[in-house]
Amino acid sequence: MTIDPGKLLLDMFGAAVAAASPENRLPPHLPQRPKGRTIVVGAGKGAGAMAKAVEDHWDGPLEGLVVTRYGHGSPCTRIEVIEAGHPVPDAAGREAAERILAMVKGLTADDLVLCLISGGGSALLALPAPGITLADKQGVNKALLKSGANISEMNCVRKHLSAIKGGKLAAAAAPARVCALLISDVPGDDPSVIASGPTVADPTTSADALAVLDKYGVAAPEAVRAWLMSPESETLKPGDPRLAGVENVMIATPQMSLEAAAEAARAGGFTPMILGNDIEGEARDVAQVHAAIARQVRQFGQPGAAPLALISGGETTVTVRGRGRGGRNAEFLLALAVALDGHPGITALAADTDGIDGTEDNAGALLYPDSLAKAAALGVSGKAKLADNDGYSFFEALGQLIVTGPTRTNVNDFRAILIAP
Amino acid sequence: MTIDPGKLLLDMFGAAVAAASPENRLPPHLPQRPKGRTIVVGAGKGAGAMAKAVEDHWDGPLEGLVVTRYGHGSPCTRIEVIEAGHPVPDAAGREAAERILAMVKGLTADDLVLCLISGGGSALLALPAPGITLADKQGVNKALLKSGANISEMNCVRKHLSAIKGGKLAAAAAPARVCALLISDVPGDDPSVIASGPTVADPTTSADALAVLDKYGVAAPEAVRAWLMSPESETLKPGDPRLAGVENVMIATPQMSLEAAAEAARAGGFTPMILGNDIEGEARDVAQVHAAIARQVRQFGQPGAAPLALISGGETTVTVRGRGRGGRNAEFLLALAVALDGHPGITALAADTDGIDGTEDNAGALLYPDSLAKAAALGVSGKAKLADNDGYSFFEALGQLIVTGPTRTNVNDFRAILIAP
Repeated sequence: MTIDPGKLLLDMFGAAVAAASPENRLPPHLPQRPKGRTIVVGAGKGAGAMAKAVEDHWDGPLEGLVVTRYGHGSPCTRIEVIEAGHPVPDAAGREAAERILAMVKGLTADDLVLCLISGGGSALLALPAPGITLADKQGVNKALLKSGANISEMNCVRKHLSAIKGGKLAAAAAPARVCALLISDVPGDDPSVIASGPTVADPTTSADALAVLDKYGVAAPEAVRAWLMSPESETLKPGDPRLAGVENVMIATPQMSLEAAAEAARAGGFTPMILGNDIEGEARDVAQVHAAIARQVRQFGQPGAAPLALISGGETTVTVRGRGRGGRNAEFLLALAVALDGHPGITALAADTDGIDGTEDNAGALLYPDSLAKAAALGVSGKAKLADNDGYSFFEALGQLIVTGPTRTNVNDFRAILIAP
Repeated sequence: MTIDPGKLLLDMFGAAVAAASPENRLPPHLPQRPKGRTIVVGAGKGAGAMAKAVEDHWDGPLEGLVVTRYGHGSPCTRIEVIEAGHPVPDAAGREAAERILAMVKGLTADDLVLCLISGGGSALLALPAPGITLADKQGVNKALLKSGANISEMNCVRKHLSAIKGGKLAAAAAPARVCALLISDVPGDDPSVIASGPTVADPTTSADALAVLDKYGVAAPEAVRAWLMSPESETLKPGDPRLAGVENVMIATPQMSLEAAAEAARAGGFTPMILGNDIEGEARDVAQVHAAIARQVRQFGQPGAAPLALISGGETTVTVRGRGRGGRNAEFLLALAVALDGHPGITALAADTDGIDGTEDNAGALLYPDSLAKAAALGVSGKAKLADNDGYSFFEALGQLIVTGPTRTNVNDFRAILIAP
């Protein structure tokens, strides 16, 4: 039997997305029905699909509200699904956050709050703390992004300027039982980082947040400083009694999706080798390393013998210098093509598990050993397209884009390289 | 027995350098003594040490001349060792090349030319073709570097503007037997690329070289164009009878050195995993990928189970944005430190097998799990040093530079990461 490597790669990608799909992953983790009411809240790119999975599988009455990105909604009948701005927060998200907070207040210990959290939830649940405007918060955010502060420092400030993050959603829900179901798109799968942890303790303090602003000389508005000096600004610390009834359950992670793709590869006759679930770096340089490893497999049978499937996850970055189209997966794959330069026996796929590569309409693309030559025959230079950050056009010209539409989940990027013997 | 990971890494680097050392690798490949004269010529960073190895092990009379980089000479008594400019060619290299060409002319079929070739030989053997000045050649080179031409296109032009490359040294030596012993520092170990292949056929033509100049709009001097249009400019093509008596033997390659380091790792109780022998890309991004793989080993036992030694070769690049000191290996290792952020159980080494990391006095450096914290305690920020391309100062402050002096060979960079269970 001859394996079609392109088809196998699409199967592997399909398995990765299926392993992150709320419809598949959520039902087994649903908690027991409470004596009292069941309130469903949530935020993130997967929130609509998660809400739908709850509606389809929950045994009992429920009500609730979740917020997802524009275009990522699902048809729910009992849970309201609001669409809002991402990555830049807007008034729709702010209003949803206010309504969610109000909805979980005044519950009893007999009630259950099901909290559906996925990547993107931080921007979608943007509710500034009392006395702070969205503009204040965004100003501080922008200044921090430019300042050189690291992601932990930025998250510390963000959580302390929010009325809902850093465990504050759980605090509002106490004494109700809270079951948070999480889909991770962050390195290390830290629940306090996904959507800035609305149901998770935060060891950092308001004083830490002020110290970060001072360290990087961020000129924060007076209202921001005044808030950070008030005791109400404090996030929930580990051991806080208001978190006693909270359970955080990771229902899907990048690693789980890579493992599912690995199984699909094995079924297709390729030994899977997972390189990493959280690989970061400039897309074209990450591609050069993947190309070198693939060549090493072909030439020396290292780090494993062909037929081999190299698999990796995690989010690369693109420093835009050209004027072309395409997200980080198209950029990765085009750079891989250029680095491999038509090396025989190597076929690859790169795509975003959320179905949207950057801001385009494709999830990713497929690369064959003859793609560079085929493009050249069409008058399309891979090297020139790469210099122009124009991966989308390169693969569009070849008819090798992968278009899925929003998958309504997100466990970050997926890359796979099949290496024939 | 407790393994000291730093010591094991130094052992592995030592094994990699030893496996590329002419003293070890050259003698088994020496050809049979000829009836006639033995002439030794050569060029490259390893030429001095290669000449010394020939002198020490050759059974019979010999004479000759090799050219190496300033500071890379070896004490020879019968073979003259000239030091010259690298990477920018100078008059000393030009004169050496002229003398080498003269020395191999007029030999008979009973004579043997031993040709000792290693990385850097291209710049050290810079002899412009008749009618072309060194300045002409350098001007074309500079314009090509800026033009976006790829390395194959640049090599095509370079070979056709040279009086000694693209097989012309072998042509001059015919009908003598030519045995070229080569140390590779190039991806794919292609003998026609190492030092631009003075003893190797070149499938590209003078017409190709002219086409490259036209394609990139390089305004070459009239003398250059005139030369490329003359039949004498042609390099030797595969099958040329003047190459019939030529044997090219690869005595050391990056892969051989990685295999030697792998053996040392195994002896130290770590399963070796060679990722690639020719990994390229921006040093800090290549480091991020290595860091992600190391974390994956710790967390999931993928792509292999700890204790594991990840090993890689090949030359990274550094886009200098800061004002600090350090070559690409210090930059890689500092970026690895920042990406790992004190992750326990991971120790690493990065160094240039030629003993010189960039233009500094160190070969590379060592990284321990506590290096970032130790530096912070000394008031040295890893992140700030990385932003300033100041890897040398970072590891100097910690006393973790590796200083070997020139090793008189070169199989490119060496990186190893030990991951404890």
